[in-house]
Amino acid sequence: MKARIIVTLKTGVLDPQGKAIESALSSFGISGIEGVRQGKVFDVEIADADPASAEATLKSACEKLLANTVVENYEIEIV
Amino acid sequence: MKARIIVTLKTGVLDPQGKAIESALSSFGISGIEGVRQGKVFDVEIADADPASAEATLKSACEKLLANTVVENYEIEIV
Repeated sequence: MKARIIVTLKTGVLDPQGKAIESALSSFGISGIEGVRQGKVFDVEIADADPASAEATLKSACEKLLANTVVENYEIEIV
Repeated sequence: MKARIIVTLKTGVLDPQGKAIESALSSFGISGIEGVRQGKVFDVEIADADPASAEATLKSACEKLLANTVVENYEIEIV
């Protein structure tokens, strides 16, 4: 079973990397970009055939390793 | 208008970071993970109100800066 985990910074947490991308885009002549925030995506292949238990496993993976829940949110999508 | 851009490695391109995450997860006692591939996500706020032209702008941002199209694929979702 395949799943996608998206880890993004919480609202209010500064994202200097996103700001750098924003100004790089404007210096490349791409206008109209009002904000960029960068996050991470993990495409996971999981052996579990049951979506609920796969989601529980991935939740624990996020809490333990993939996301820093102090400053980041995560979303799990079973695909 | 908000958009999400997801940049992932093309199939066949080695992902040592993903492999490291895979083995870290297994050392954290999380079993059943058969593969991990890491990518990037960009949450973009764009001034353009027309979805088609916003998508064109973002496509050009991906081609010019956000993705290395030799080894990476990108997906644009207007949200």
